[in-house]
Amino acid sequence: MRKLINAPADVVADALRGLAAAHPSLRVDPDAGIVVRADAPRSGKVGLVSGGGSGHEPLHGGFVGYGMLDAACPGEVFTSPVPDQILAATTAVDGGAGVLHIVKNYTGDVLNFRMAAELAEDEDIEVASVVVNDDVAVEDSTYTAGRRGTGATLFVEKIAGALAEEGAELDAVAAVAREVNERSRSFGVALSPCTVPAAGQPTFELGEDEIELGIGIHGEPGRERVKTMPANEIVEASLTAIDTDMSLAGGELLVLVNGMGGTPLIEQYIAYAAASAWLSDHGATVVRPVVGPYVTSLEMAGVMISVCRLTPELTRLWDAPVETPALRWGR
Amino acid sequence: MRKLINAPADVVADALRGLAAAHPSLRVDPDAGIVVRADAPRSGKVGLVSGGGSGHEPLHGGFVGYGMLDAACPGEVFTSPVPDQILAATTAVDGGAGVLHIVKNYTGDVLNFRMAAELAEDEDIEVASVVVNDDVAVEDSTYTAGRRGTGATLFVEKIAGALAEEGAELDAVAAVAREVNERSRSFGVALSPCTVPAAGQPTFELGEDEIELGIGIHGEPGRERVKTMPANEIVEASLTAIDTDMSLAGGELLVLVNGMGGTPLIEQYIAYAAASAWLSDHGATVVRPVVGPYVTSLEMAGVMISVCRLTPELTRLWDAPVETPALRWGR
Repeated sequence: MRKLINAPADVVADALRGLAAAHPSLRVDPDAGIVVRADAPRSGKVGLVSGGGSGHEPLHGGFVGYGMLDAACPGEVFTSPVPDQILAATTAVDGGAGVLHIVKNYTGDVLNFRMAAELAEDEDIEVASVVVNDDVAVEDSTYTAGRRGTGATLFVEKIAGALAEEGAELDAVAAVAREVNERSRSFGVALSPCTVPAAGQPTFELGEDEIELGIGIHGEPGRERVKTMPANEIVEASLTAIDTDMSLAGGELLVLVNGMGGTPLIEQYIAYAAASAWLSDHGATVVRPVVGPYVTSLEMAGVMISVCRLTPELTRLWDAPVETPALRWGR
Repeated sequence: MRKLINAPADVVADALRGLAAAHPSLRVDPDAGIVVRADAPRSGKVGLVSGGGSGHEPLHGGFVGYGMLDAACPGEVFTSPVPDQILAATTAVDGGAGVLHIVKNYTGDVLNFRMAAELAEDEDIEVASVVVNDDVAVEDSTYTAGRRGTGATLFVEKIAGALAEEGAELDAVAAVAREVNERSRSFGVALSPCTVPAAGQPTFELGEDEIELGIGIHGEPGRERVKTMPANEIVEASLTAIDTDMSLAGGELLVLVNGMGGTPLIEQYIAYAAASAWLSDHGATVVRPVVGPYVTSLEMAGVMISVCRLTPELTRLWDAPVETPALRWGR
């Protein structure tokens, strides 16, 4: 296992110590496992909390800050955060206007966020929840009833965060989060597996000349294992899968070409070139492109493509100022 | 070879097409191999040109934009750009105030930039050159007489770019670039090799339980091959090597913990936690931390630490607004 770590049990706490040291704009409690905006709670502002297993960085801790999340609660690697942890994050960001939980659709996450929401409501904090389930690859999977939540989580957190920053009420922030999720789809491809530090073994095996289409962000099985293909064909297979589920023609799109953690940026740009050409050939317009590793799977090699059919209002909210460790513009 | 590419010969041109499609703020010519700010040349502004082999993205193309480079000329993977290409970039950004070449210290790069500078001077463009040689690991190496240029290139390009944006003259911009280089040091560690697409074989071999201390950014041999160590010890070895060469005690530091391309962000933050603690224990203060993959080696796993001993003026220039694909703040 070639990893830049100290001990498998210390991975998440050590990384949180690094996040804290590098970003004074965050209040990080490595032992409680929460990452909070230093200026939270903000009176009258809806608080946004997300979280899930670690190993997907910069998601979610790297998206805490002005115009995006108010707090993140990272679990152990590929393991749901516990209800107490989610409750601590919720309490820390409650400014009296309620808190939105943004939850990726994995059974453990959904259950633990639900339990935390009930505990928060016992403390008179109003909580709304939005479940992200953008991955078209499979209907149910190893950790999921229904579709998995993956790359579109970036879109939901950015756009809902912008609306909350403007002072919108909880119902409106929850509604825009759901709208973004409904208008978004993703599809991922793995060129290699990854290894959870505590397990010490790869999450799955791939032959030298094999790739997995429709991979999940924890190495869950995808749709099919095929022979290695050129980047253009990998991108075509991904966008065809998305387009079959939600037609892209005529769309004004936000497109993320997302490196999975072990794929270098030069290859992500090759994939974006292919995506841009395919979309143009199929009558869609990319109005907001994003290329980079935003929702990763440890050191997995591969790429995920996520798209959102924008509206003028969603574009406006995407463009609104944001200032977080991993996403920053316009302020 | 698990790569998201079409054909080895198309890697750089395909990636440049992706860069062009994703960033309308750039004027990219994939065939000529140049990446230029869309608003270049700017009359009266010193132009900044850098370049080198591809495979280190976002360096250099991702650093073209307001407050940083005016143009980049990427060669083939791990291969110097040719003089005509460097000349084209130089001509494209000349606004009458001269052009600064920022050159990483590799024999081919130095020779080809020198030849391009002579050709540009034949066209009455004044050119100054700064060679970056921050890597303390080895004195001479496979591709270098003297020290290699690595992570501190980010510092030189950002700080010189800020001064040029303010309207400083060529001599002053070249002087600050040299000052940053002189005050900066780097040391890298590889946990895995990488594979140049055209070669199809790893640049070197590492045993399952081995790492290479002092690695170059093309997989050139480092100082020594040792048994795998915890992240804290890898960071300690790196910072000790730097501190032996340039004492860090009492310094106000800009510190980059740089992922080499295949190392996920969670591990980069673990390394930053270790670096932050080591520096604090040794009497140095990190005033500007940077964590992320900025100067990479394809999919190599590993980390490089770069430090610059700041002055108040260098800190001011580091903080100045920048707007490029890979670095963006404050405007």
